[in-house]
Amino acid sequence: MTRVAFDEMKTNIKKAFRLVGMKEEKAEICAATHAGSSCDGVYSHGLNRVPRFVDYINKGWVDVDAEPVIEKKLGAMEIFNGNMGPGILNARFAMNRAMKIAEENILGLVTLRNTTHWMRGGTYGWQAAENGFIAICWTNTESCMPAWGAKTVGIGNNPFVMAVPHKNGPMVLDMAMSQYSYGKLQVTRLKGEKLPYPGGFDKNGNLTDVPGLIEDSWRILPTGYWKGSGFAIVLDVIAALLSNGLSTAEIDKVGKGSCGSCNQVFIAIDPLKISSQDFIDNVLQQTIQQVKNSVPDERSSQIYYPGERTLLTRKENLKNGIPVDDGIWNEVKRLAES
Amino acid sequence: MTRVAFDEMKTNIKKAFRLVGMKEEKAEICAATHAGSSCDGVYSHGLNRVPRFVDYINKGWVDVDAEPVIEKKLGAMEIFNGNMGPGILNARFAMNRAMKIAEENILGLVTLRNTTHWMRGGTYGWQAAENGFIAICWTNTESCMPAWGAKTVGIGNNPFVMAVPHKNGPMVLDMAMSQYSYGKLQVTRLKGEKLPYPGGFDKNGNLTDVPGLIEDSWRILPTGYWKGSGFAIVLDVIAALLSNGLSTAEIDKVGKGSCGSCNQVFIAIDPLKISSQDFIDNVLQQTIQQVKNSVPDERSSQIYYPGERTLLTRKENLKNGIPVDDGIWNEVKRLAES
Repeated sequence: MTRVAFDEMKTNIKKAFRLVGMKEEKAEICAATHAGSSCDGVYSHGLNRVPRFVDYINKGWVDVDAEPVIEKKLGAMEIFNGNMGPGILNARFAMNRAMKIAEENILGLVTLRNTTHWMRGGTYGWQAAENGFIAICWTNTESCMPAWGAKTVGIGNNPFVMAVPHKNGPMVLDMAMSQYSYGKLQVTRLKGEKLPYPGGFDKNGNLTDVPGLIEDSWRILPTGYWKGSGFAIVLDVIAALLSNGLSTAEIDKVGKGSCGSCNQVFIAIDPLKISSQDFIDNVLQQTIQQVKNSVPDERSSQIYYPGERTLLTRKENLKNGIPVDDGIWNEVKRLAES
Repeated sequence: MTRVAFDEMKTNIKKAFRLVGMKEEKAEICAATHAGSSCDGVYSHGLNRVPRFVDYINKGWVDVDAEPVIEKKLGAMEIFNGNMGPGILNARFAMNRAMKIAEENILGLVTLRNTTHWMRGGTYGWQAAENGFIAICWTNTESCMPAWGAKTVGIGNNPFVMAVPHKNGPMVLDMAMSQYSYGKLQVTRLKGEKLPYPGGFDKNGNLTDVPGLIEDSWRILPTGYWKGSGFAIVLDVIAALLSNGLSTAEIDKVGKGSCGSCNQVFIAIDPLKISSQDFIDNVLQQTIQQVKNSVPDERSSQIYYPGERTLLTRKENLKNGIPVDDGIWNEVKRLAES
């Protein structure tokens, strides 16, 4: 396994983005976000997504120059048209707006319609929490998972993010509605391993932990069976309603790749408008202590709170370099040169 | 199995509540809510919870006369002290306030600290959706589930609700963070059956679908394994921060039963301030159609959207009577007479 320094990774990604027409400042932010996701251990949505993003730009599915334009402003809510601009830039902009509104109103609700793939959803949770805000955000997507009770794909995996600021590192939940991503299935198959728990159904409807059988059937499992399925459906509908945008069923018809013309919700809340820093620190500390003081089970040596391992991975990868798949790394380097 | 008419059930529950000191109007609302939950098929939090609620009142853990008192008002947000009043009344009040605020501000955020068990979380989603509002709400609870990686109980199961109004019946997600409730484990064990999917670990740390083994170990499974665990932790912390209230770790120390001095978040959004009724109907219809047009899997004859089966159950139970456990029904009738 090759490890690549953060700056080297970012520089190459940035060059690749510049070469397909992205302006300096935008390429810098997008490259830093992709490299940051890989650095944080979210390999599926960092470096690995660069070739596909470049491909989308080349196909005209992402407009590198588009900017979000406000369509409606109502109290503490703003709705923007993302104009099919780069999903990362649109989403960062939207979370920034939500925080700005929250500074004055405690809470800011910003939605984006007609945007593109935001890559790693957790990015925007970290963005808010590192600036002192509680965040709730989610996106809808094209269909990629069967609803519970179905064997054909019909719902999105609609990632959902919640984040809380904390002096020792934010608490960040970043969960897709499928138990595993297709990226995880692929990586596990290539290692010749099984999933730790069943991740979908085979073609005959048997629950299985063999990744290849799920990749063949396209019957990936909603997290928590019926629960993740219902959650995905409701997240989809609310994202569409709050943004005046498309539902999963309609995104399917757009045909501009994964998340082409998807819709996102960004809620930021300023906790210091409600209580003191001491109170906030206490709530976080007591909760973390209670979780970490639990007795580890037979498979664990310690218990982590959401976001904790991200910081550990970040630290390790900044020190030792970010692990990369050689094929993908070489492809990105080619994209940075051609 | 005995079936009891809705009115007969409500009347008996109301008498029981009146006998422990609840005033006429409050007893009416609480009784209708308990009977309504059973009528909707949520048997675990309807009639079945009446004896425990009466017990809590007798122990002084719920104050039947307490009213929510506002502690902070900030823009579209209000924080109330529930004063350990009946959880149903406090939560209904809070959702009403959130809707009132949303009428003027699009969005209303109301939190309750120091309240008591709200029974069925979905109640407040239905309340909002039936009045035309999108709702997001959740509660924290005492510890009742091990965090992922732990074998000792340390986190709440913190039910989370999302609801969307729809002319043919709301879309309502009502999910606890455990894969199954202890109520479901008990019912399944009494029938001599296994759970449809693993619901926790036995004492030796083996994942199991035998309900009795999980009841013995108290190692109930978070929904989606690590995902439900992380989600529960973040919901807990945000509920405490937004309400200026207690986290699960602190609720554990209160010692006033299940959810004694818990904290709740109620968000209501008026979708008609954002788009037209036609647009809303279209989004819902397209999504429902896409879900229902999926090909059913080997175990299913059709696919339901969240909330759909609730209405079917309600209709059936209103027509044929609500199925009750004879022991519990007799107990409630005794409580209504003594």
